[in-house]
Amino acid sequence: MKMNTKINPLTDLSIAKNAKMKPIKEISDKIGISDDYLDLYGKYRAKIDFEKIPMKDTPGKIVLVTAISPTAAGEGKSTVTVGLADAMQKIGQSAIVALREPSLGPVMGVKGGATGGGYAQVLPMEEINLHFNGDLHAITTANNALSAIIDNHLHQGNQLQIDPRRIIWKRVIDMNDRALRHITIGLGGPTQGVPREDGFDITVASEIMAILCLAKDLRDLKERLAQIVIGYTYDKEPVTVRALEAEGALTLLLKEAIKPNLVQTIEGTPAIIHGGPFANIAHGCNSIIATKTAANLADVVVTEAGFGADLGAEKFMHIKSRQGGFSPNAVVIVATIRALKMQGGKQKDSLKEEDVAALLKGTSNLEKHIDTIRAFGIEPVIALNKFSLDTNDEIEALLSWCKEKNVVIALTEVWEKGGEGGVELAKLVMQELEKPSKFAPLYDVTESIEDKVKTIVQKVYGGTDVVFTDTAQKQINQIKSYGWDTMPICMAKTQYSLTDQPKLLGRPNGFTITVREVLPKLGAGFIVCLTGDIMTMPGLPKKPAALNMDVSEDGHAIGLF
Amino acid sequence: MKMNTKINPLTDLSIAKNAKMKPIKEISDKIGISDDYLDLYGKYRAKIDFEKIPMKDTPGKIVLVTAISPTAAGEGKSTVTVGLADAMQKIGQSAIVALREPSLGPVMGVKGGATGGGYAQVLPMEEINLHFNGDLHAITTANNALSAIIDNHLHQGNQLQIDPRRIIWKRVIDMNDRALRHITIGLGGPTQGVPREDGFDITVASEIMAILCLAKDLRDLKERLAQIVIGYTYDKEPVTVRALEAEGALTLLLKEAIKPNLVQTIEGTPAIIHGGPFANIAHGCNSIIATKTAANLADVVVTEAGFGADLGAEKFMHIKSRQGGFSPNAVVIVATIRALKMQGGKQKDSLKEEDVAALLKGTSNLEKHIDTIRAFGIEPVIALNKFSLDTNDEIEALLSWCKEKNVVIALTEVWEKGGEGGVELAKLVMQELEKPSKFAPLYDVTESIEDKVKTIVQKVYGGTDVVFTDTAQKQINQIKSYGWDTMPICMAKTQYSLTDQPKLLGRPNGFTITVREVLPKLGAGFIVCLTGDIMTMPGLPKKPAALNMDVSEDGHAIGLF
Repeated sequence: MKMNTKINPLTDLSIAKNAKMKPIKEISDKIGISDDYLDLYGKYRAKIDFEKIPMKDTPGKIVLVTAISPTAAGEGKSTVTVGLADAMQKIGQSAIVALREPSLGPVMGVKGGATGGGYAQVLPMEEINLHFNGDLHAITTANNALSAIIDNHLHQGNQLQIDPRRIIWKRVIDMNDRALRHITIGLGGPTQGVPREDGFDITVASEIMAILCLAKDLRDLKERLAQIVIGYTYDKEPVTVRALEAEGALTLLLKEAIKPNLVQTIEGTPAIIHGGPFANIAHGCNSIIATKTAANLADVVVTEAGFGADLGAEKFMHIKSRQGGFSPNAVVIVATIRALKMQGGKQKDSLKEEDVAALLKGTSNLEKHIDTIRAFGIEPVIALNKFSLDTNDEIEALLSWCKEKNVVIALTEVWEKGGEGGVELAKLVMQELEKPSKFAPLYDVTESIEDKVKTIVQKVYGGTDVVFTDTAQKQINQIKSYGWDTMPICMAKTQYSLTDQPKLLGRPNGFTITVREVLPKLGAGFIVCLTGDIMTMPGLPKKPAALNMDVSEDGHAIGLF
Repeated sequence: MKMNTKINPLTDLSIAKNAKMKPIKEISDKIGISDDYLDLYGKYRAKIDFEKIPMKDTPGKIVLVTAISPTAAGEGKSTVTVGLADAMQKIGQSAIVALREPSLGPVMGVKGGATGGGYAQVLPMEEINLHFNGDLHAITTANNALSAIIDNHLHQGNQLQIDPRRIIWKRVIDMNDRALRHITIGLGGPTQGVPREDGFDITVASEIMAILCLAKDLRDLKERLAQIVIGYTYDKEPVTVRALEAEGALTLLLKEAIKPNLVQTIEGTPAIIHGGPFANIAHGCNSIIATKTAANLADVVVTEAGFGADLGAEKFMHIKSRQGGFSPNAVVIVATIRALKMQGGKQKDSLKEEDVAALLKGTSNLEKHIDTIRAFGIEPVIALNKFSLDTNDEIEALLSWCKEKNVVIALTEVWEKGGEGGVELAKLVMQELEKPSKFAPLYDVTESIEDKVKTIVQKVYGGTDVVFTDTAQKQINQIKSYGWDTMPICMAKTQYSLTDQPKLLGRPNGFTITVREVLPKLGAGFIVCLTGDIMTMPGLPKKPAALNMDVSEDGHAIGLF
């Protein structure tokens, strides 16, 4: 995420362009990946043939980086994640940072990449933010190949008796494109397919993205793809990818995308970047394969989950950890003075002003996220991600508050100083990693859907109750009748508030969450609950970031931040 | 194209899998590309940083491979193109083969790759046929980013006053998906965009594909992108990409895709594969950058243009050569006994039977294509691409016919024997390359649209006249009024017949071609004329090839041919 440019004349792009990258083979050598397990993509990127790498006896420990409820600009969670890994290297730990891949939607839409910032970035920044190694395109292609096969099936006689009104599989595109949310297809007469309503989601919301991120290996990927339910017959029986005989082709389209990508930080720390579901509309974590591969190659894996602890972290604990068979050994919560002031009621356009009172009021939000992580049995470490406009009084106020609350906090300056700015944080995290794990999930998958959602609402969001719309209740009943209700929940909720109302900041209480749709994802292995007006296809803003982009005479990106 | 599998137990995929590839650096070393100009994509693929390579004084000569009107299975034009380059190497020439990139549409739709066949293939076959180095995905993304920007412009106040009914820019997808031909988008109320009619073309038909294939360099690419006309205002004034300020972002999205891709043939001949417009709905040639880069690195470039000489070759002469500032020094026409028998009226299901009479009748089609190439001032060399079912009497009959007509022909067996099977062809082609070029285009761009199309219909198709529908005539008038009429023509026509009726085989005469739509492509620099019921979005067949695809236990493709 971008920050600080108003003060610092350096931009992330200019810092990234001036950084001296090592050939990726030097990075892979460092962590013992032989050339046989590596496919180069240019000089500074590679794909790892993870299935071939021998497994070590004791995997590395996992540090999860999460955050308080963010502002629209983000609180620098990726930046801190990268900087913490660099700092781990600085204090002598073998560390790998594991991140998600950026989606072109936000890159072209709002000014923002997903490669960290300042001197805590992963490189090559341009390639990672555009196309990268083709994973998102492969997912888009597999998703839409399935759509084409479904519509072709309807057109060619519909042997499976699929009800065109009950197809739940949507097309996807890696773009912010609101005009594709609701469409009608197959128009133009009998040779042009069967008319029906359809829509596009953004690729990061595709079930195939979730599957890629949750699969153990290529075989598991194929089995999960086969299990996808694409819709229902006229008799309301579920229709799977297996029934369409499409899982082989989809697996083939994903056989390279499933391999995690190796790059490096500005300081030469190995970075594995793989998979990129959003945390508000999907499960928000990089792939299990990436995290496990990193844990197999280093002693410490620093990884992040999207948005606040109510979103990415909760799903990391209940979905990714559960399916991956691991748990986080330490959790960092990133906070910024700016976001805390906003949580305390300060207006967006005056966040640059010192306001200790607003800051202290806003700590209620931080406190809730601390309570949430503690509820999972883990003592969090707070990373105060310093911005140049933060005043000493503000910083002192937060440090005192943490001391009073008996919470461990480190001031981090990784944007400006790289790993050096995160050494204190790294040391505090190492202390937590020494302790035995007391991690426990908050619900059991065998509980009812209603109970599981209620647990999340109460214990993670701090709300009172959950209401299911009639549609949602019908969907729950249907899911139960098929015996699919024993999967974990994947909440789709605004990232700005602990509630389903983006403007309710701080630590609201007594609120109710409304679930308007409940969608089974048999391949991913979770049940999506849509709340509020969260949308699975964003739109572009009035002035998209794309309109400022260009290529310089020497072939470099302009306008990527 | 696939052939011969019924008889030969070897499939293209099995031959490809068993071939021993050289590391791509060995290939690049051979043609003097330093590592500084190369980005590896895995061990056997690379992108060439073509703008950095020093230009040699005399570029290599260009051999264009075209064909007679094909059967649905194809006549092995890519196979002969690859085999001819291998044969050139065998007789001591420095040669590079320049091909188009496969589209996933046909790969997933009908059984067929586009990497040659048998022992005349380019490798790695799996990667080239799937995703390759991401070029088609980058084009799809740039195309649809523009669509998203257009629809966002409508939604955010429509400052340019774009008439939603007059937007001619369509979305694309690299897939055969008939249900997306005619769609309505922007449904669902005021927050979901502006409702309008739209449709998806297949990516290979995108103007951006044509632009990538016709651009000289990154700067030219950007200028062409800026010139694209996406539609018209309520006042019927054209709206360009420049007016939308989107050319920078589109260029950025294409900055890697513009670099040509280096791979190798089974025999280790360098192959540059770049760009992939279809020849029936687009201009059907690989990129100018690829052909020029190859000519800068080798003495002989063997390249192909899609389908019969009426399609790809005509557009190679009038569009690609003109814009690239070169011309073919020799032309090979690929013919097969099977296709000639079909052109002679033999039924599809009995093409395996010997039938000299049908064959000789079918030579009328070959003769027309010979006449066409001669009309351009070039004496063609015929390559009889031998199939195992061809009988001696059939082969002798064709050889005699050629002798009688004073046409040079070589029996080629590159599918079975690789370069060795194309040595005779290579020697005959070398003789033609010695001769001074008498190449001349058949029309001048300054002629009227009607005259240019009429010239193509009469001199290339052998027809009598051309009829423009009222719609087409209106479009021509509009194009003239904007002063856009001095661009070459890009005909969109069925590949199966010289006419616009797929079932009229042989060498029809006295026919008329109907042009139903005339579309200006300012970025590509040509005017598309749609004839017959040619469609810019194919559909999947009853049983798509995808349904037989899979990945083997050792991670290799199954079901790619």
